[in-house]
Amino acid sequence: MFEHTIYIRVRYGETDQMGYVYYGNYGLYYEEGRTEAIKSLGVSYKELEKNGIMMPVAEMKVRFKGPAKYDELLKIVSRVREMPSRSMVFDTAIYNEVGKLINEGETRLLFVKAESRKPCSAPAQLIAVLEPYFKFTV
Amino acid sequence: MFEHTIYIRVRYGETDQMGYVYYGNYGLYYEEGRTEAIKSLGVSYKELEKNGIMMPVAEMKVRFKGPAKYDELLKIVSRVREMPSRSMVFDTAIYNEVGKLINEGETRLLFVKAESRKPCSAPAQLIAVLEPYFKFTV
Amino acid sequence: MFEHTIYIRVRYGETDQMGYVYYGNYGLYYEEGRTEAIKSLGVSYKELEKNGIMMPVAEMKVRFKGPAKYDELLKIVSRVREMPSRSMVFDTAIYNEVGKLINEGETRLLFVKAESRKPCSAPAQLIAVLEPYFKFTV
Amino acid sequence: MFEHTIYIRVRYGETDQMGYVYYGNYGLYYEEGRTEAIKSLGVSYKELEKNGIMMPVAEMKVRFKGPAKYDELLKIVSRVREMPSRSMVFDTAIYNEVGKLINEGETRLLFVKAESRKPCSAPAQLIAVLEPYFKFTV
Repeated sequence: MFEHTIYIRVRYGETDQMGYVYYGNYGLYYEEGRTEAIKSLGVSYKELEKNGIMMPVAEMKVRFKGPAKYDELLKIVSRVREMPSRSMVFDTAIYNEVGKLINEGETRLLFVKAESRKPCSAPAQLIAVLEPYFKFTV
Repeated sequence: MFEHTIYIRVRYGETDQMGYVYYGNYGLYYEEGRTEAIKSLGVSYKELEKNGIMMPVAEMKVRFKGPAKYDELLKIVSRVREMPSRSMVFDTAIYNEVGKLINEGETRLLFVKAESRKPCSAPAQLIAVLEPYFKFTV
Repeated sequence: MFEHTIYIRVRYGETDQMGYVYYGNYGLYYEEGRTEAIKSLGVSYKELEKNGIMMPVAEMKVRFKGPAKYDELLKIVSRVREMPSRSMVFDTAIYNEVGKLINEGETRLLFVKAESRKPCSAPAQLIAVLEPYFKFTV
Repeated sequence: MFEHTIYIRVRYGETDQMGYVYYGNYGLYYEEGRTEAIKSLGVSYKELEKNGIMMPVAEMKVRFKGPAKYDELLKIVSRVREMPSRSMVFDTAIYNEVGKLINEGETRLLFVKAESRKPCSAPAQLIAVLEPYFKFTV
């Protein structure tokens, strides 16, 4: 398993009139978590795109367990539990400032050739850096 | 079953550099579909909130089956398949301009007292207008 | 002068915890007003972009004179007071449901070649449809 | 004069199909700059709001001088050049990764009592922490 953690401070504009982060804004947090997770492996999504690979989201599931508030510092934990092949799944867990799990979910991303917009396999570069996290020792 | 349809035109700012609607923006479309669905029943969510009932989203599932593009007119179909009790589930299906199903998902919303932020049952007003859609005839 | 009016209903996700539309979301409303304004002339910005012309915003000024609320139907009036040459200026005025002017501002957009990202003049197609609105009769 | 600097990394969802940060998203960056600027003085906007003071934006001017790209680390410099009284003006300058000034603008915020939504003067707490930056020595 591969896991990476970042922290995000809630912006005023990300709240709604209920006084909490708008449910539709968690996608931005999940995405920032994923971006930084693969960057921590030495692979930049920006570079992948320049090299002709896009990663559109195919599926998303989110459970909203508690509110996030303006100016709160959220802990975003992104996990990859399976080696990607045609797609890649990230689990995301979000904790508020007192350590309560307030949100969890998963996103499944496809690998797509930018030119043709056709599905393809995970790029070798990404496979290479992830493999060490999925090796068993006897 | 209760069903309602609206149309939304994609804004430029709702796309991302992939050239399609950003995956995180579908929450806004789902929400507009839900808002107008219950409004078509004669119940305004704005009024519910003024009367002390909030409806935070507890769960969301989305399948992204195809892209939506800038300036496209999307058809948003919102369905309620079960009478709400402590929560209310909306199914949403989104079709693009050529009638292709590009997105489907569901959101489960809780009923919460605005003051105490404690869960409660669906307000009688909402139950009353939905009931006719769930009656069986022999 | 050329003028066009559209109506936008405020989404829940466009409010913030102050209970009004977040100041940063007016750009989306202005843009929708501009898009529909030139579309009413028979020119689609989507088509302009496909033909290699982009219109990035170079300048924006906004005066927030009053709040806009969730579910309110806003009247968005977009005006072009001068024939575009290297850039194009839109004036926007937003009225709430009781006819109060709650927001006004302007945006200046450049014409840019999509390939080179270099500035250029307004496309002939746009000039042609705007000219009738700026002709004087003796 | 008082000045404060933060850094913001551009999210994918903040770009549009032009491939740059959407013009309407700069408001979020300006706001984060302002929030952190006053926080660095020991005053939290979150606390101000809890104490009954809101700061809606009354005016915004933005000059877009160059694009910001996905995953770029932007330097956001917020300046207060005048002691606030009934309103407070922030100048914001944004620099890209190679130090180019890509965006500058200003926002004028009002002080408003949360309960009555009536204008008021800057809270004493804010005046006190800003004063040292505006004192002349002979």
